[in-house]
Amino acid sequence: MGKKKILSEWYHKLLEKADIVDGRYPVKGMLIYRGWGLHIIKEMQYFLEKLLNDSGHEPVLFPVLIPEDILGKETKHIAGFEEEVYWVTHAGKNRLDRKMSLRPTSETPIYEMFKLWIRSHTDLPYMVQQSCAVYRYETKHTRPLIRGREFLWNEGHSAHLDADDVRRHMEMIDEIYSKLIGDLLCIPYVVSARPEWDRFPGASETRAFDTLMPDGRTLQVATIHDLGQNFSKAFGLTYENEDGQHKLAYTCSYGPSFGRLLASVICIHGDDIGLILPPAIAPVQVIIIPVVFKESEREAILSAAGKLSSELKNKGVRVKVDDGDERPGAKYFRWEMRGVPLRIELGPRELKQGLVTVVRRDTGEKKQVSLDKLDVELFFKKITSSMRDEALKRFNEGFFSAGNLDELRDYAGKGIIKAGWCGKSECADSIEECADILSVDVKKSKCVVCGLEGVEVSAAKTY
Amino acid sequence: MGKKKILSEWYHKLLEKADIVDGRYPVKGMLIYRGWGLHIIKEMQYFLEKLLNDSGHEPVLFPVLIPEDILGKETKHIAGFEEEVYWVTHAGKNRLDRKMSLRPTSETPIYEMFKLWIRSHTDLPYMVQQSCAVYRYETKHTRPLIRGREFLWNEGHSAHLDADDVRRHMEMIDEIYSKLIGDLLCIPYVVSARPEWDRFPGASETRAFDTLMPDGRTLQVATIHDLGQNFSKAFGLTYENEDGQHKLAYTCSYGPSFGRLLASVICIHGDDIGLILPPAIAPVQVIIIPVVFKESEREAILSAAGKLSSELKNKGVRVKVDDGDERPGAKYFRWEMRGVPLRIELGPRELKQGLVTVVRRDTGEKKQVSLDKLDVELFFKKITSSMRDEALKRFNEGFFSAGNLDELRDYAGKGIIKAGWCGKSECADSIEECADILSVDVKKSKCVVCGLEGVEVSAAKTY
Repeated sequence: MGKKKILSEWYHKLLEKADIVDGRYPVKGMLIYRGWGLHIIKEMQYFLEKLLNDSGHEPVLFPVLIPEDILGKETKHIAGFEEEVYWVTHAGKNRLDRKMSLRPTSETPIYEMFKLWIRSHTDLPYMVQQSCAVYRYETKHTRPLIRGREFLWNEGHSAHLDADDVRRHMEMIDEIYSKLIGDLLCIPYVVSARPEWDRFPGASETRAFDTLMPDGRTLQVATIHDLGQNFSKAFGLTYENEDGQHKLAYTCSYGPSFGRLLASVICIHGDDIGLILPPAIAPVQVIIIPVVFKESEREAILSAAGKLSSELKNKGVRVKVDDGDERPGAKYFRWEMRGVPLRIELGPRELKQGLVTVVRRDTGEKKQVSLDKLDVELFFKKITSSMRDEALKRFNEGFFSAGNLDELRDYAGKGIIKAGWCGKSECADSIEECADILSVDVKKSKCVVCGLEGVEVSAAKTY
Repeated sequence: MGKKKILSEWYHKLLEKADIVDGRYPVKGMLIYRGWGLHIIKEMQYFLEKLLNDSGHEPVLFPVLIPEDILGKETKHIAGFEEEVYWVTHAGKNRLDRKMSLRPTSETPIYEMFKLWIRSHTDLPYMVQQSCAVYRYETKHTRPLIRGREFLWNEGHSAHLDADDVRRHMEMIDEIYSKLIGDLLCIPYVVSARPEWDRFPGASETRAFDTLMPDGRTLQVATIHDLGQNFSKAFGLTYENEDGQHKLAYTCSYGPSFGRLLASVICIHGDDIGLILPPAIAPVQVIIIPVVFKESEREAILSAAGKLSSELKNKGVRVKVDDGDERPGAKYFRWEMRGVPLRIELGPRELKQGLVTVVRRDTGEKKQVSLDKLDVELFFKKITSSMRDEALKRFNEGFFSAGNLDELRDYAGKGIIKAGWCGKSECADSIEECADILSVDVKKSKCVVCGLEGVEVSAAKTY
């Protein structure tokens, strides 16, 4: 399949042709989101926000600017971000009294306000979520939707009574993200605890969701951070317990990247023709193509198309009639390229028999269906579940086991590799010359570098 | 009524109590949008975006950063904004090669891309819209939602064949905004062409939507700008006409401020108790309060409340059951303060007869209704139309006519005043010492300053 070999060229062309993003904006690493791409992101966003709100999160929107002193309150945090923060130093012709950063993430301003909002143990857990853009001056190679200097995400932040409640909360968020990534987007993934050196700056644990791109590299699409009391200490974030004592809260933060999720959807489900979208996020779920051979038939066919379209719209389906002047083949191609899950062709002979032809984008399967019995929702269900199965099958083929460094090197770039590691940092360095360590497990295994007893790690080439 | 007299204190307290915004974020002029306020803004946003998309706009999202050279391409535009632009000058520890502004508005980056997207006359009109935050370093007194340094809006941008098409387009946008402001939000307004000195920097006409706040000052909530060929010239924005010649396009830009619209909703509809929200934008449209006197009745009442809530939810109503431990009076007060349009009280005796008590927030009217015949949508319609009528009645009382400068001074701060102006700038200055000139009409009238023949102007104290 051409797609995998030329993933990069295929990807960049598709982003532009399908109106997903335009990468030609004259600021490196910053994209213009266009109609088709933005719609898909909004579908993800609404789905996620609803789950978060239903679970007790308050939707909020914080300013993009964070004053330097607030961003700098937690030492490890600022140390981790200071290389990649954009600074606003002037307004009009004046230098600002204190410089302000574009938010690289919002723990610090949010805790600054949690201090005012949280008084008592009865206020806990306290949960907020916001969908916004964040800004990081990436020095690594930027890639549209995958590594940018401005990217769209949802960030959740919570404060808790104790460490146990943080663990329970992390499980809940894990479940919510699995609904977003697995159920909605049909993207398979593994969740793992990142090694210490790869944690979020200021976190005592970082749990990451990795998926596998068709070129064998993993892509981290979401993270959940246990921040312990690190930030609470720095911000003086306390609550009054039942005995009237002031206690430090525990905090947690988490977020999926909408851009990276979109990139996964594009690359994991797409084929040589273009996008294949799960129905739930497709901007157009059904495209109706009137197939007109003779002018005399046009009116009847267009009116049938309009009627079908209204019926589907009333059922809440996102449907469009393509009644332009192009020949049907050109229309088929355009909507296939854009990943519309279902095409309905309305032709003159069929129509007389009350039939239409339904074509699935994911399998290409064609079927004549009686208009009376057309069940679009059932098609959507089938498409969704077969897209999920298909992606999972390929994902499961991407796991390898390496007994030594040569094998590790061979498998690197093909998927996720299990290998032994003794725990020494020089051996980790050797492993990471081949593939990044995603997680350190407890299962015993001999180090692929020095041969000493150790534990199993998961490693992969990563984006 | 206390509200009008202490508008400012009433307003600030309500913003906080009703979880609309928090003004305590430590950056002047920047707010935290909280759950209740953010939900109302999202309802406005979705409503507007749908109308714009249906009319042919493509939703887009541009980066927040605009390089200095692009922002500066149109001379009048940059002259108008340069005093209030935030500049990003550094990233990490490095100074950027070229400084970049936080978008104060997006004409310039959008035209930079229109140049790539528009080729031929068949591409026109070309229309895009984005909902985003913009940044202006206001030196005037800031006020939450009314004048801030970061504010939320939707901005539309379009390119056209000729000046006529711009006029037609402005009419269409006028209609869309009237649906947003008048139909959805029930806010009365006047549309007028701003005098030359008060136009958007770079515009050949600025049409503004002004509403009247209860303290007698007008608030500009939306604008539409005819930009002629000013920006097209600066950006080289051309299209190929039918004869293959390259022609300069005409452009237009427009936007309502979501913050100011929310401020109008709060101040114009609200009363001493708090918010009164039009049902279409209320985060909770129906609050169900179980009224439990005896423990033995609790289960039956709560189950009836749950059933009613599910039924309404299935109809798409945003409904909530307040089954907390407080006494009903405290609950009534809280949801009234938050402006929930309809309260349904479920009591034990009524319930046995299949009745509920329905209370309208806008009028306070109480009604016993049979559960079988409860028509919530009909209530919403009545509330909406009576809120619109009520607001319009008060709006219409806010127009005055001044025959001389003393009268103008008297009426200033009470509403919109018609007065004569001869056209000389020194007389305009005298008028504007009393009240800002909103628009210059064609009707003849003697100048209130010098007495010479002139035309009528509309003037008001403005926010």
